Amino acid sequence: MEDLLATADHGYLGLLTPDGWPMTVPLNFVYADGRIYFHGAGEGEKMSSLAESPRVTFTVAEGFSIVPSYFRDPRLACPATQYYRCVMIRGHARVVDDVAEKALALQSMMEKLQPEGGHEPIEVGNPIYRKSLKTTAVVAIEIERMTAKFKFGQNLPKSTRAQVAERLTARGCPVDHATVDAIRRYTK
Amino acid sequence: MEDLLATADHGYLGLLTPDGWPMTVPLNFVYADGRIYFHGAGEGEKMSSLAESPRVTFTVAEGFSIVPSYFRDPRLACPATQYYRCVMIRGHARVVDDVAEKALALQSMMEKLQPEGGHEPIEVGNPIYRKSLKTTAVVAIEIERMTAKFKFGQNLPKSTRAQVAERLTARGCPVDHATVDAIRRYTK
Repeated sequence: MEDLLATADHGYLGLLTPDGWPMTVPLNFVYADGRIYFHGAGEGEKMSSLAESPRVTFTVAEGFSIVPSYFRDPRLACPATQYYRCVMIRGHARVVDDVAEKALALQSMMEKLQPEGGHEPIEVGNPIYRKSLKTTAVVAIEIERMTAKFKFGQNLPKSTRAQVAERLTARGCPVDHATVDAIRRYTK
Repeated sequence: MEDLLATADHGYLGLLTPDGWPMTVPLNFVYADGRIYFHGAGEGEKMSSLAESPRVTFTVAEGFSIVPSYFRDPRLACPATQYYRCVMIRGHARVVDDVAEKALALQSMMEKLQPEGGHEPIEVGNPIYRKSLKTTAVVAIEIERMTAKFKFGQNLPKSTRAQVAERLTARGCPVDHATVDAIRRYTK
């Protein structure tokens, strides 16, 4: 789960709007200190919804190969599927007020999404960030439950799974090689 | 919006669970006849939640290039961003009972995700699908509102946007070329 959270560039915040509808928002994020952090403008539907209803979910998924039905059956469409891995988090959203925590979260996000650097570190003491650290809203999700769902043919008979892996290798799209690696990593 | 719905292999269903929490589930889907269709097992948390609370959202996003801060500023981290396009749908989930509509939805999904064919068409009259068409749950989302949010530097001064496009081209990761195409397509 931590591997997926460290590599996925965006996830999906699920929340409840004041009019009682669910809402799902794609967001860049970082998983740091056991929390999800994201940032945004201080106003808008997302922030007002969070203030009223802090119970949120955060879902991060990575789609792997689409496995065509004919890899397993020459006639039936039913075996068609997509392999994937997915982490689902439940937690409470907390608007971060502390400037030091904001700076830490934003710097962590930069280190994840722009690991090559090329900017002055985001630190409370740096005057070029004084205004931004005030105006940028940062939200933490305090995680209460984190579960995962992975699909890499783990319920198939071993020989069928091996056959799927072989055909994926033969097809050889870039994602197929990552899928075959994941099959080896996550199934036995 | 229809272009994104036609090409994205999965989207995120947002719903409300019986215990009052939002939930976000990644799903393969097809946009056909002005509706979102997805399928799954007939039982489980998703289906029982939908039965109790049919108000749902469906979000489809495509992440493009991560644009590093130094493409625009040598010191500040703030210009760092990711370009993306995203469609957000609000609607009512309806469990599809009619076998002909089920077959049409599932066949449409096959044509989207396995356009090369290689299976017998999913039709009500085909006995090899009789059992699956009964046991597979298909859900339609009757769309009430569909909005989009695209970020391709459209609010930047034209010269700055041209500079970002130039640096993306020079970096030349596969996604960067798609991003530059999208900048040209979606901004003026």
